Amino acid sequence: MSTREHLVTATMELLWERGYEATSPRAILERSGAGQGSLYHHFKSKADLVATALNEVSNEMQGIVDATLHSNKPPLERVRDYLTQPREALRGCRLGRMIQEPAITQDALLRDPISSYFTYSKRELTAALAQAQQDGTLSPSINVADLATTLIAVVQGGYVMARALQDAEAMEQAIRGALALLEASERR
Amino acid sequence: MSTREHLVTATMELLWERGYEATSPRAILERSGAGQGSLYHHFKSKADLVATALNEVSNEMQGIVDATLHSNKPPLERVRDYLTQPREALRGCRLGRMIQEPAITQDALLRDPISSYFTYSKRELTAALAQAQQDGTLSPSINVADLATTLIAVVQGGYVMARALQDAEAMEQAIRGALALLEASERR
Repeated sequence: MSTREHLVTATMELLWERGYEATSPRAILERSGAGQGSLYHHFKSKADLVATALNEVSNEMQGIVDATLHSNKPPLERVRDYLTQPREALRGCRLGRMIQEPAITQDALLRDPISSYFTYSKRELTAALAQAQQDGTLSPSINVADLATTLIAVVQGGYVMARALQDAEAMEQAIRGALALLEASERR
Repeated sequence: MSTREHLVTATMELLWERGYEATSPRAILERSGAGQGSLYHHFKSKADLVATALNEVSNEMQGIVDATLHSNKPPLERVRDYLTQPREALRGCRLGRMIQEPAITQDALLRDPISSYFTYSKRELTAALAQAQQDGTLSPSINVADLATTLIAVVQGGYVMARALQDAEAMEQAIRGALALLEASERR
């Protein structure tokens, strides 16, 4: 890896562990093993480096959503695959967690990778749910854009509850409840 | 209000605006109008003051859940009231937001008011859903503890999405989708 890549990787790790404000340029340098001055050689500012790192995380996570929601399975199977993919519940979402910090919310450069991920996930889930309505497996009375938002929210809220209760099982429960509701809305 | 109460109120406000680590003792003193030294006269530490503030928020929020879920309405009406109560979506949950910070998650004193709120909400929602199953309005095939967790997660995730997209409508969509799923599981 290049020094630039080492800096980005270290930043991705530290953001997930500590959040944005608590991640100092010094900690990034130490974690990356990069020399003094290299951060401001490769990036305009800490915010510029963090935006780069968040964009990388966002692209990676959009790739996972993409692979999950565009398989050859029937549409509701794909939605279930989205809900049940493995997650490190106690660590929180690498993007959703960040949005709690005002310094992220208030800076479009930092917020964009996070909002892009949610916009993309919502659009692709909405499309899969609309397909399920078209092929007659999902009740036509449900607004699919609302439901897509609900399902993403269940995952994000599952992280919050798992961290609050310090129990990864809270995520499992939230997902199981969503799967049960989804099943009740299915038409066979 | 006493100086102690001014300190607690200022801390509650600042936590909601900035989070824990970004709230300095100096900012608390300035916001509260309390004199130098008064913080450490009334509290052992910043963490002690923050724990007091979070406990106050937790009690207040448990009171709202209590009033909502113990009305005289039929059980599923009460659950819908829980979902549709007014929320400042863009500001985030006063408790759920805090749990993203490692300094909160790792300190039992600071985490307790947050986990208590979720434990209480989950227990009371589970009880209301179990009542709905007993009176025959909710499908008996659904695990009510799972569903209670799902519904709390929808609210928490609604906050995350509203902040990420900078659009309070995301919370409304998440809630509407949950209401639609719930309706599909109802028996009339």
